[in-house]
Amino acid sequence: MNLILLEEHELGDGSRVVLSDRRADHILNTLKCNPGSTVRVGLVNGSLGLATLVESSGETVELDCRFEDDPPACPSVDLLLALPRPKVMRRLWAPLASLGVGHIALTNAWKVERNYFDTHVLDEETYRPLLIEGLQQARDTLLPQVSIHRQFKKLVEDELDDLFPPQIRLMADPSAHERIQEVLGRNNPARVLLAVGPEGGWTDYEKDLLVQHGFLPVGMGQRILRTDTACIGLLTLVHSALDSEGRKHRTSNIEQRTSN
Amino acid sequence: MNLILLEEHELGDGSRVVLSDRRADHILNTLKCNPGSTVRVGLVNGSLGLATLVESSGETVELDCRFEDDPPACPSVDLLLALPRPKVMRRLWAPLASLGVGHIALTNAWKVERNYFDTHVLDEETYRPLLIEGLQQARDTLLPQVSIHRQFKKLVEDELDDLFPPQIRLMADPSAHERIQEVLGRNNPARVLLAVGPEGGWTDYEKDLLVQHGFLPVGMGQRILRTDTACIGLLTLVHSALDSEGRKHRTSNIEQRTSN
Repeated sequence: MNLILLEEHELGDGSRVVLSDRRADHILNTLKCNPGSTVRVGLVNGSLGLATLVESSGETVELDCRFEDDPPACPSVDLLLALPRPKVMRRLWAPLASLGVGHIALTNAWKVERNYFDTHVLDEETYRPLLIEGLQQARDTLLPQVSIHRQFKKLVEDELDDLFPPQIRLMADPSAHERIQEVLGRNNPARVLLAVGPEGGWTDYEKDLLVQHGFLPVGMGQRILRTDTACIGLLTLVHSALDSEGRKHRTSNIEQRTSN
Repeated sequence: MNLILLEEHELGDGSRVVLSDRRADHILNTLKCNPGSTVRVGLVNGSLGLATLVESSGETVELDCRFEDDPPACPSVDLLLALPRPKVMRRLWAPLASLGVGHIALTNAWKVERNYFDTHVLDEETYRPLLIEGLQQARDTLLPQVSIHRQFKKLVEDELDDLFPPQIRLMADPSAHERIQEVLGRNNPARVLLAVGPEGGWTDYEKDLLVQHGFLPVGMGQRILRTDTACIGLLTLVHSALDSEGRKHRTSNIEQRTSN
Protein backbone atom coordinates (compact mmCIF):
# COMPACT_ATOMS: atom_id res chain seq x y z
CA MET A 1 0.00 0.00 0.00
CA ASN A 2 1.99 2.97 -1.29
CA LEU A 3 -0.98 5.31 -1.11
CA ILE A 4 -4.06 5.42 1.14
CA LEU A 5 -7.11 5.79 -1.10
CA LEU A 6 -10.21 7.45 0.30
CA GLU A 7 -13.74 7.58 -1.05
CA GLU A 8 -15.35 10.99 -1.48
CA HIS A 9 -18.20 10.07 0.91
CA GLU A 10 -15.74 9.13 3.65
CA LEU A 11 -14.55 12.74 3.81
CA GLY A 12 -17.90 14.47 3.77
CA ASP A 13 -17.46 18.24 3.58
CA GLY A 14 -14.37 18.56 5.72
CA SER A 15 -10.76 17.46 5.49
CA ARG A 16 -10.94 14.94 8.36
CA VAL A 17 -11.49 11.20 8.04
CA VAL A 18 -11.52 8.41 10.63
CA LEU A 19 -10.34 4.96 9.50
CA SER A 20 -10.45 1.64 11.32
CA ASP A 21 -9.94 -0.90 8.54
CA ARG A 22 -6.90 -2.31 6.70
CA ARG A 23 -5.79 1.21 5.89
CA ALA A 24 -5.63 2.12 9.58
CA ASP A 25 -3.74 -1.11 10.27
CA HIS A 26 -1.27 -0.26 7.50
CA ILE A 27 -0.74 3.29 8.80
CA LEU A 28 -0.21 2.12 12.39
CA ASN A 29 1.58 -1.21 12.01
CA THR A 30 3.42 -1.11 8.68
CA LEU A 31 4.22 2.59 8.34
CA LYS A 32 4.39 2.90 12.15
CA CYS A 33 3.01 6.45 12.04
CA ASN A 34 2.56 8.60 15.15
CA PRO A 35 0.45 11.74 15.59
CA GLY A 36 2.08 14.39 13.40
CA SER A 37 3.35 11.89 10.80
CA THR A 38 2.24 12.40 7.21
CA VAL A 39 1.07 9.76 4.74
CA ARG A 40 0.31 9.91 1.02
CA VAL A 41 -3.41 9.93 0.32
CA GLY A 42 -5.59 10.04 -2.76
CA LEU A 43 -9.27 10.37 -3.60
CA VAL A 44 -10.74 7.56 -5.70
CA ASN A 45 -10.96 9.04 -9.23
CA GLY A 46 -9.55 12.30 -7.86
CA SER A 47 -6.53 14.18 -6.62
CA LEU A 48 -3.43 13.10 -4.72
CA GLY A 49 -2.24 14.69 -1.51
CA LEU A 50 -0.84 14.34 1.97
CA ALA A 51 -2.58 13.63 5.26
CA THR A 52 -1.39 14.29 8.79
CA LEU A 53 -2.18 11.73 11.46
CA VAL A 54 -4.14 13.73 14.03
CA GLU A 55 -4.95 11.03 16.53
CA SER A 56 -4.80 7.29 16.90
CA SER A 57 -6.46 5.10 19.48
CA GLY A 58 -6.29 1.33 19.38
CA GLU A 59 -7.04 0.35 15.79
CA THR A 60 -8.44 3.70 14.69
CA VAL A 61 -6.70 6.67 13.06
CA GLU A 62 -7.92 10.17 12.31
CA LEU A 63 -6.35 11.88 9.32
CA ASP A 64 -6.38 15.51 8.23
CA CYS A 65 -6.13 15.49 4.45
CA ARG A 66 -5.02 18.05 1.89
CA PHE A 67 -5.44 17.13 -1.76
CA GLU A 68 -3.15 19.53 -3.58
CA ASP A 69 -1.73 17.42 -6.41
CA ASP A 70 -3.36 16.72 -9.75
CA PRO A 71 -4.71 13.23 -10.33
CA PRO A 72 -2.32 11.02 -12.30
CA ALA A 73 -2.78 10.88 -16.08
CA CYS A 74 -5.26 8.28 -17.35
CA PRO A 75 -3.41 5.15 -18.53
CA SER A 76 -3.18 5.06 -22.33
CA VAL A 77 -3.98 1.36 -22.65
CA ASP A 78 -7.38 -0.36 -22.74
CA LEU A 79 -7.91 -4.10 -22.51
CA LEU A 80 -10.40 -6.34 -24.30
CA LEU A 81 -10.12 -9.64 -22.45
CA ALA A 82 -11.91 -12.93 -23.06
CA LEU A 83 -13.19 -13.73 -19.59
CA PRO A 84 -10.78 -16.16 -17.90
CA ARG A 85 -11.91 -18.68 -15.30
CA PRO A 86 -13.04 -17.02 -12.06
CA LYS A 87 -9.93 -17.96 -10.02
CA VAL A 88 -7.65 -16.35 -12.61
CA MET A 89 -9.92 -13.29 -13.03
CA ARG A 90 -9.96 -12.73 -9.28
CA ARG A 91 -6.16 -12.78 -9.23
CA LEU A 92 -5.98 -10.36 -12.17
CA TRP A 93 -8.00 -7.37 -10.92
CA ALA A 94 -5.31 -5.90 -8.67
CA PRO A 95 -2.38 -6.35 -11.11
CA LEU A 96 -4.43 -4.83 -13.96
CA ALA A 97 -5.15 -1.73 -11.88
CA SER A 98 -1.54 -1.52 -10.72
CA LEU A 99 -0.16 -1.74 -14.27
CA GLY A 100 -2.60 0.91 -15.46
CA VAL A 101 -5.56 0.18 -17.71
CA GLY A 102 -8.15 2.80 -18.70
CA HIS A 103 -11.04 0.47 -19.58
CA ILE A 104 -11.29 -3.29 -19.01
CA ALA A 105 -13.88 -4.88 -21.32
CA LEU A 106 -14.53 -8.52 -20.47
CA THR A 107 -16.06 -10.53 -23.25
CA ASN A 108 -17.47 -13.91 -24.04
CA ALA A 109 -15.75 -16.04 -26.71
CA TRP A 110 -16.21 -19.54 -28.11
CA LYS A 111 -13.76 -21.04 -25.59
CA VAL A 112 -15.09 -19.12 -22.58
CA GLU A 113 -17.40 -21.25 -20.44
CA ARG A 114 -20.80 -19.61 -20.00
CA ASN A 115 -20.91 -20.17 -16.25
CA TYR A 116 -17.84 -17.93 -15.80
CA PHE A 117 -20.26 -15.01 -16.18
CA ASP A 118 -22.37 -16.08 -13.23
CA THR A 119 -19.66 -15.86 -10.58
CA HIS A 120 -19.43 -13.02 -8.10
CA VAL A 121 -15.91 -12.18 -9.30
CA LEU A 122 -17.77 -9.98 -11.83
CA ASP A 123 -19.82 -8.21 -9.14
CA GLU A 124 -18.70 -4.65 -8.56
CA GLU A 125 -18.59 -5.23 -4.80
CA THR A 126 -16.06 -8.00 -5.41
CA TYR A 127 -13.80 -6.36 -7.96
CA ARG A 128 -13.85 -2.75 -6.81
CA PRO A 129 -11.83 -3.40 -3.61
CA LEU A 130 -9.37 -5.46 -5.68
CA LEU A 131 -8.94 -2.65 -8.20
CA ILE A 132 -8.45 -0.21 -5.32
CA GLU A 133 -5.80 -2.54 -3.86
CA GLY A 134 -3.94 -2.33 -7.19
CA LEU A 135 -4.27 1.46 -7.34
CA GLN A 136 -2.95 1.81 -3.78
CA GLN A 137 0.03 -0.34 -4.76
CA ALA A 138 0.81 1.77 -7.85
CA ARG A 139 -0.02 5.21 -6.32
CA ASP A 140 -2.82 5.81 -8.76
CA THR A 141 -6.34 7.10 -8.07
CA LEU A 142 -8.15 6.42 -11.34
CA LEU A 143 -10.34 3.33 -11.22
CA PRO A 144 -10.37 1.45 -14.53
CA GLN A 145 -13.79 1.43 -16.17
CA VAL A 146 -15.19 -2.10 -16.35
CA SER A 147 -17.73 -3.41 -18.85
CA ILE A 148 -18.99 -6.96 -19.35
CA HIS A 149 -20.10 -8.29 -22.73
CA ARG A 150 -21.86 -11.61 -23.23
CA GLN A 151 -22.02 -11.32 -27.02
CA PHE A 152 -18.63 -11.16 -28.72
CA LYS A 153 -19.92 -10.51 -32.24
CA LYS A 154 -22.24 -7.71 -31.16
CA LEU A 155 -19.43 -6.17 -29.10
CA VAL A 156 -16.93 -6.15 -31.94
CA GLU A 157 -19.32 -5.19 -34.72
CA ASP A 158 -21.61 -2.70 -33.01
CA GLU A 159 -20.20 -1.46 -29.71
CA LEU A 160 -16.42 -1.21 -29.92
CA ASP A 161 -16.23 2.13 -31.70
CA ASP A 162 -18.45 3.79 -29.11
CA LEU A 163 -16.72 2.16 -26.14
CA PHE A 164 -13.16 3.00 -27.13
CA PRO A 165 -11.79 6.27 -28.49
CA PRO A 166 -9.88 6.02 -31.79
CA GLN A 167 -6.67 4.15 -31.14
CA ILE A 168 -4.41 1.41 -32.43
CA ARG A 169 -5.94 -2.03 -31.87
CA LEU A 170 -3.68 -5.01 -31.16
CA MET A 171 -4.61 -8.68 -30.88
CA ALA A 172 -2.27 -10.98 -28.96
CA ASP A 173 -1.76 -14.01 -31.20
CA PRO A 174 0.91 -16.65 -30.46
CA SER A 175 1.28 -17.34 -34.20
CA ALA A 176 1.95 -13.69 -35.12
CA HIS A 177 5.45 -12.81 -36.23
CA GLU A 178 5.40 -9.08 -35.48
CA ARG A 179 6.10 -7.82 -32.00
CA ILE A 180 4.29 -5.10 -30.03
CA GLN A 181 7.25 -2.71 -30.08
CA GLU A 182 7.57 -3.07 -33.87
CA VAL A 183 3.91 -2.28 -34.54
CA LEU A 184 3.77 0.59 -32.04
CA GLY A 185 7.15 1.95 -33.23
CA ARG A 186 5.69 2.24 -36.73
CA ASN A 187 2.43 3.84 -35.63
CA ASN A 188 3.32 5.91 -32.56
CA PRO A 189 -0.27 5.95 -31.26
CA ALA A 190 -1.61 7.94 -28.31
CA ARG A 191 -3.78 5.04 -27.09
CA VAL A 192 -3.75 1.28 -27.54
CA LEU A 193 -6.58 -1.24 -27.25
CA LEU A 194 -5.14 -4.71 -26.59
CA ALA A 195 -7.23 -7.85 -27.13
CA VAL A 196 -6.26 -11.01 -25.21
CA GLY A 197 -8.03 -14.30 -25.95
CA PRO A 198 -9.16 -17.19 -23.74
CA GLU A 199 -6.81 -19.94 -22.49
CA GLY A 200 -7.63 -22.06 -25.56
CA GLY A 201 -7.18 -19.08 -27.91
CA TRP A 202 -9.61 -17.24 -30.19
CA THR A 203 -11.27 -19.32 -32.90
CA ASP A 204 -10.42 -18.52 -36.54
CA TYR A 205 -13.81 -16.84 -36.87
CA GLU A 206 -13.11 -14.62 -33.86
CA LYS A 207 -9.63 -13.74 -35.11
CA ASP A 208 -11.00 -12.85 -38.55
CA LEU A 209 -13.67 -10.64 -36.99
CA LEU A 210 -11.08 -8.83 -34.89
CA VAL A 211 -8.78 -8.34 -37.89
CA GLN A 212 -11.73 -7.03 -39.96
CA HIS A 213 -12.27 -4.47 -37.20
CA GLY A 214 -8.73 -3.19 -37.28
CA PHE A 215 -6.92 -5.42 -34.77
CA LEU A 216 -3.27 -6.06 -35.74
CA PRO A 217 -1.92 -9.48 -34.63
CA VAL A 218 1.15 -9.31 -32.40
CA GLY A 219 3.19 -12.20 -30.98
CA MET A 220 5.11 -12.62 -27.77
CA GLY A 221 7.35 -15.57 -28.64
CA GLN A 222 6.69 -19.29 -28.66
CA ARG A 223 5.92 -19.95 -25.01
CA ILE A 224 2.25 -20.37 -24.15
CA LEU A 225 1.38 -18.44 -21.00
CA ARG A 226 -1.53 -18.59 -18.60
CA THR A 227 -3.97 -15.69 -19.17
CA ASP A 228 -2.89 -13.76 -16.08
CA THR A 229 0.84 -14.06 -16.86
CA ALA A 230 0.20 -13.18 -20.52
CA CYS A 231 -1.92 -10.13 -19.61
CA ILE A 232 0.73 -8.75 -17.25
CA GLY A 233 3.50 -9.37 -19.79
CA LEU A 234 1.57 -7.90 -22.72
CA LEU A 235 0.44 -4.79 -20.81
CA THR A 236 4.03 -4.24 -19.68
CA LEU A 237 5.21 -4.46 -23.29
CA VAL A 238 2.54 -2.01 -24.50
CA HIS A 239 3.31 0.49 -21.71
CA SER A 240 7.03 0.13 -22.36
CA ALA A 241 6.65 0.66 -26.11
CA LEU A 242 4.39 3.72 -25.62
CA ASP A 243 6.84 5.11 -23.06
CA SER A 244 9.80 4.48 -25.34
CA GLU A 245 8.11 6.11 -28.35
CA GLY A 246 7.09 9.05 -26.13
CA ARG A 247 10.68 9.44 -24.97
CA LYS A 248 12.05 9.27 -28.51
CA HIS A 249 9.48 11.86 -29.55
CA ARG A 250 10.37 14.17 -26.67
CA THR A 251 14.09 13.78 -27.41
CA SER A 252 13.64 14.55 -31.10
CA ASN A 253 11.55 17.64 -30.22
CA ILE A 254 14.33 18.85 -27.93
CA GLU A 255 16.92 18.17 -30.64
CA GLN A 256 14.81 20.08 -33.15
CA ARG A 257 14.44 23.03 -30.81
CA THR A 258 18.19 22.96 -30.09
CA SER A 259 19.14 22.85 -33.77
CA ASN A 260 16.74 25.68 -34.72
CA MET B 1 -1.32 -28.00 -19.60
CA ASN B 2 0.04 -27.79 -23.14
CA LEU B 3 2.52 -30.61 -22.59
CA ILE B 4 2.45 -33.71 -20.38
CA LEU B 5 5.78 -33.82 -18.51
CA LEU B 6 7.09 -37.17 -17.35
CA GLU B 7 9.89 -38.01 -14.95
CA GLU B 8 12.63 -40.34 -16.17
CA HIS B 9 11.87 -42.86 -13.39
CA GLU B 10 8.20 -43.05 -14.41
CA LEU B 11 9.22 -44.51 -17.77
CA GLY B 12 11.76 -47.02 -16.54
CA ASP B 13 13.51 -48.73 -19.46
CA GLY B 14 10.57 -48.89 -21.81
CA SER B 15 8.40 -46.40 -23.67
CA ARG B 16 5.20 -47.11 -21.70
CA VAL B 17 3.91 -45.14 -18.73
CA VAL B 18 0.72 -45.43 -16.68
CA LEU B 19 -0.70 -42.22 -15.19
CA SER B 20 -3.55 -41.74 -12.76
CA ASP B 21 -3.00 -38.19 -11.48
CA ARG B 22 -3.87 -34.69 -12.79
CA ARG B 23 -2.13 -35.51 -16.05
CA ALA B 24 -4.45 -38.46 -16.65
CA ASP B 25 -7.43 -36.28 -15.76
CA HIS B 26 -6.25 -33.64 -18.24
CA ILE B 27 -5.76 -36.21 -21.03
CA LEU B 28 -9.18 -37.79 -20.46
CA ASN B 29 -11.37 -34.87 -19.47
CA THR B 30 -9.82 -31.74 -20.99
CA LEU B 31 -8.19 -33.13 -24.13
CA LYS B 32 -10.91 -35.83 -24.34
CA CYS B 33 -8.43 -38.35 -25.79
CA ASN B 34 -9.45 -41.87 -26.85
CA PRO B 35 -7.22 -44.90 -27.46
CA GLY B 36 -5.13 -44.04 -30.54
CA SER B 37 -5.08 -40.27 -29.83
CA THR B 38 -1.68 -38.60 -29.51
CA VAL B 39 -0.59 -36.03 -26.94
CA ARG B 40 2.55 -33.92 -26.63
CA VAL B 41 4.90 -35.24 -23.97
CA GLY B 42 8.28 -34.23 -22.58
CA LEU B 43 10.85 -35.62 -20.19
CA VAL B 44 11.75 -33.36 -17.27
CA ASN B 45 15.12 -31.82 -18.27
CA GLY B 46 15.00 -33.85 -21.46
CA SER B 47 13.50 -34.26 -24.92
CA LEU B 48 10.09 -33.50 -26.32
CA GLY B 49 7.95 -36.00 -28.17
CA LEU B 50 4.55 -37.52 -28.82
CA ALA B 51 2.70 -40.24 -26.96
CA THR B 52 -0.13 -42.46 -28.14
CA LEU B 53 -2.91 -43.29 -25.71
CA VAL B 54 -2.84 -47.10 -25.56
CA GLU B 55 -5.54 -47.74 -23.03
CA SER B 56 -7.67 -45.89 -20.53
CA SER B 57 -9.79 -47.28 -17.74
CA GLY B 58 -11.62 -45.08 -15.25
CA GLU B 59 -9.09 -42.47 -14.16
CA THR B 60 -5.99 -44.20 -15.51
CA VAL B 61 -4.25 -43.84 -18.87
CA GLU B 62 -1.43 -45.81 -20.43
CA LEU B 63 0.78 -43.91 -22.87
CA ASP B 64 3.33 -45.16 -25.40
CA CYS B 65 5.94 -42.40 -25.72
CA ARG B 66 8.47 -41.46 -28.37
CA PHE B 67 10.89 -38.66 -27.55
CA GLU B 68 12.21 -37.64 -30.92
CA ASP B 69 12.54 -33.84 -30.60
CA ASP B 70 15.43 -31.94 -29.06
CA PRO B 71 14.82 -30.32 -25.70
CA PRO B 72 14.00 -26.61 -25.96
CA ALA B 73 16.91 -24.14 -25.69
CA CYS B 74 17.82 -23.06 -22.15
CA PRO B 75 16.26 -19.66 -21.34
CA SER B 76 18.84 -16.88 -21.59
CA VAL B 77 17.69 -15.05 -18.46
CA ASP B 78 18.61 -15.71 -14.83
CA LEU B 79 16.90 -14.10 -11.85
CA LEU B 80 18.35 -12.85 -8.57
CA LEU B 81 15.28 -12.21 -6.42
CA ALA B 82 15.02 -10.88 -2.88
CA LEU B 83 12.77 -13.46 -1.28
CA PRO B 84 9.16 -12.15 -1.27
CA ARG B 85 6.63 -13.12 1.37
CA PRO B 86 5.65 -16.78 1.14
CA LYS B 87 2.19 -16.20 -0.35
CA VAL B 88 3.71 -14.19 -3.22
CA MET B 89 6.61 -16.63 -3.71
CA ARG B 90 4.19 -19.56 -3.94
CA ARG B 91 2.26 -17.72 -6.64
CA LEU B 92 5.46 -16.92 -8.56
CA TRP B 93 7.01 -20.37 -9.12
CA ALA B 94 4.74 -21.43 -12.00
CA PRO B 95 4.84 -18.08 -13.89
CA LEU B 96 8.65 -17.93 -13.56
CA ALA B 97 8.99 -21.39 -15.10
CA SER B 98 6.46 -20.55 -17.81
CA LEU B 99 8.25 -17.32 -18.78
CA GLY B 100 11.60 -19.12 -18.91
CA VAL B 101 14.35 -18.59 -16.34
CA GLY B 102 17.60 -20.55 -16.30
CA HIS B 103 18.53 -20.08 -12.65
CA ILE B 104 16.44 -18.58 -9.84
CA ALA B 105 18.63 -17.37 -6.96
CA LEU B 106 16.58 -16.31 -3.93
CA THR B 107 18.39 -14.03 -1.55
CA ASN B 108 18.03 -12.35 1.78
CA ALA B 109 18.08 -8.54 1.91
CA TRP B 110 17.61 -5.90 4.61
CA LYS B 111 13.88 -5.63 3.96
CA VAL B 112 13.27 -9.40 3.72
CA GLU B 113 11.84 -10.83 6.93
CA ARG B 114 14.00 -13.66 8.27
CA ASN B 115 11.08 -15.99 8.86
CA TYR B 116 10.30 -16.04 5.12
CA PHE B 117 13.18 -18.51 4.83
CA ASP B 118 11.59 -21.01 7.19
CA THR B 119 8.44 -21.63 5.17
CA HIS B 120 7.91 -24.77 3.13
CA VAL B 121 7.43 -22.71 -0.02
CA LEU B 122 11.23 -23.04 -0.32
CA ASP B 123 11.17 -26.84 0.05
CA GLU B 124 11.90 -28.63 -3.19
CA GLU B 125 8.85 -30.86 -2.73
CA THR B 126 6.71 -27.71 -2.67
CA TYR B 127 8.23 -25.74 -5.52
CA ARG B 128 9.15 -28.53 -7.94
CA PRO B 129 5.52 -29.40 -8.83
CA LEU B 130 4.79 -25.68 -9.27
CA LEU B 131 7.77 -25.26 -11.60
CA ILE B 132 6.62 -28.32 -13.54
CA GLU B 133 3.13 -26.80 -13.80
CA GLY B 134 4.72 -23.71 -15.39
CA LEU B 135 6.80 -25.82 -17.80
CA GLN B 136 3.74 -27.82 -18.85
CA GLN B 137 1.95 -24.54 -19.54
CA ALA B 138 4.81 -23.18 -21.70
CA ARG B 139 5.75 -26.49 -23.42
CA ASP B 140 9.21 -26.48 -21.89
CA THR B 141 11.07 -29.35 -20.22
CA LEU B 142 14.01 -27.59 -18.55
CA LEU B 143 13.51 -27.06 -14.82
CA PRO B 144 15.02 -23.78 -13.62
CA GLN B 145 17.89 -24.28 -11.20
CA VAL B 146 17.02 -22.92 -7.76
CA SER B 147 19.46 -21.72 -5.10
CA ILE B 148 18.73 -20.08 -1.77
CA HIS B 149 21.08 -17.56 -0.15
CA ARG B 150 20.73 -16.28 3.38
CA GLN B 151 23.68 -13.89 3.16
CA PHE B 152 23.30 -11.18 0.55
CA LYS B 153 26.84 -9.72 0.90
CA LYS B 154 28.53 -13.12 0.68
CA LEU B 155 26.38 -14.00 -2.34
CA VAL B 156 27.20 -10.83 -4.26
CA GLU B 157 30.87 -10.59 -3.29
CA ASP B 158 31.97 -14.23 -3.30
CA GLU B 159 29.47 -16.48 -5.05
CA LEU B 160 27.88 -14.65 -7.96
CA ASP B 161 30.69 -15.13 -10.48
CA ASP B 162 30.69 -18.89 -9.93
CA LEU B 163 26.91 -19.22 -9.95
CA PHE B 164 26.28 -17.27 -13.13
CA PRO B 165 28.15 -17.44 -16.43
CA PRO B 166 29.47 -14.11 -17.75
CA GLN B 167 26.51 -11.99 -18.75
CA ILE B 168 24.99 -8.52 -18.55
CA ARG B 169 23.69 -7.80 -15.05
CA LEU B 170 20.63 -5.60 -14.59
CA MET B 171 19.13 -4.26 -11.37
CA ALA B 172 15.46 -3.22 -11.40
CA ASP B 173 15.36 0.21 -9.76
CA PRO B 174 12.24 2.41 -9.83
CA SER B 175 14.43 5.55 -9.75
CA ALA B 176 16.53 4.53 -12.78
CA HIS B 177 15.99 6.51 -15.96
CA GLU B 178 17.29 3.96 -18.47
CA ARG B 179 15.02 1.20 -19.73
CA ILE B 180 15.80 -2.49 -20.23
CA GLN B 181 15.53 -2.32 -24.02
CA GLU B 182 17.93 0.65 -24.14
CA VAL B 183 20.62 -1.08 -22.07
CA LEU B 184 20.27 -4.41 -23.87
CA GLY B 185 20.11 -2.69 -27.27
CA ARG B 186 23.51 -1.13 -26.53
CA ASN B 187 25.11 -4.33 -25.25
CA ASN B 188 23.44 -7.13 -27.23
CA PRO B 189 24.29 -9.79 -24.62
CA ALA B 190 23.78 -13.55 -24.93
CA ARG B 191 22.58 -13.87 -21.32
CA VAL B 192 21.08 -11.52 -18.75
CA LEU B 193 21.05 -11.73 -14.96
CA LEU B 194 18.19 -9.63 -13.57
CA ALA B 195 18.10 -8.56 -9.91
CA VAL B 196 14.70 -7.72 -8.37
CA GLY B 197 14.55 -6.28 -4.83
CA PRO B 198 12.11 -6.80 -1.95
CA GLU B 199 8.72 -5.04 -1.70
CA GLY B 200 10.34 -2.18 0.26
CA GLY B 201 13.23 -1.92 -2.22
CA TRP B 202 16.98 -2.51 -1.83
CA THR B 203 18.76 -0.31 0.73
CA ASP B 204 21.35 2.17 -0.57
CA TYR B 205 24.08 -0.15 0.70
CA GLU B 206 22.62 -3.10 -1.23
CA LYS B 207 22.22 -1.03 -4.39
CA ASP B 208 25.82 0.20 -4.14
CA LEU B 209 27.08 -3.36 -3.68
CA LEU B 210 25.14 -4.54 -6.73
CA VAL B 211 26.40 -1.62 -8.83
CA GLN B 212 30.00 -2.32 -7.71
CA HIS B 213 29.51 -5.85 -8.98
CA GLY B 214 28.42 -4.78 -12.41
CA PHE B 215 24.65 -4.44 -12.10
CA LEU B 216 23.22 -1.67 -14.31
CA PRO B 217 20.12 0.06 -12.89
CA VAL B 218 17.06 -0.10 -15.14
CA GLY B 219 13.62 1.43 -14.56
CA MET B 220 10.14 0.39 -15.57
CA GLY B 221 8.26 3.67 -15.15
CA GLN B 222 6.79 5.37 -12.13
CA ARG B 223 4.20 2.85 -10.99
CA ILE B 224 5.20 0.72 -8.02
CA LEU B 225 4.28 -2.92 -8.60
CA ARG B 226 3.94 -5.92 -6.31
CA THR B 227 6.95 -8.25 -6.58
CA ASP B 228 5.12 -10.90 -8.59
CA THR B 229 3.68 -8.41 -11.09
CA ALA B 230 7.07 -6.66 -11.37
CA CYS B 231 8.94 -9.96 -11.92
CA ILE B 232 6.59 -11.05 -14.69
CA GLY B 233 6.75 -7.63 -16.36
CA LEU B 234 10.53 -7.33 -16.08
CA LEU B 235 11.21 -10.88 -17.35
CA THR B 236 8.87 -10.22 -20.28
CA LEU B 237 10.79 -7.04 -21.12
CA VAL B 238 14.17 -8.81 -20.91
CA HIS B 239 12.99 -11.72 -23.10
CA SER B 240 11.43 -9.28 -25.55
CA ALA B 241 14.60 -7.15 -25.77
CA LEU B 242 16.84 -10.22 -26.25
CA ASP B 243 14.45 -11.57 -28.87
CA SER B 244 14.32 -8.21 -30.67
CA GLU B 245 18.13 -7.83 -30.67
CA GLY B 246 18.47 -11.42 -31.89
CA ARG B 247 16.01 -10.71 -34.71
CA LYS B 248 17.80 -7.47 -35.69
CA HIS B 249 21.11 -9.35 -35.68
CA ARG B 250 19.73 -12.15 -37.86
CA THR B 251 18.21 -9.61 -40.27
CA SER B 252 21.47 -7.66 -40.57
CA ASN B 253 23.39 -10.91 -41.20
CA ILE B 254 20.98 -11.75 -44.00
CA GLU B 255 21.28 -8.22 -45.42
CA GLN B 256 25.08 -8.46 -45.30
CA ARG B 257 25.03 -11.80 -47.05
CA THR B 258 22.61 -10.43 -49.65
CA SER B 259 24.72 -7.34 -50.35
CA ASN B 260 27.98 -9.34 -50.66
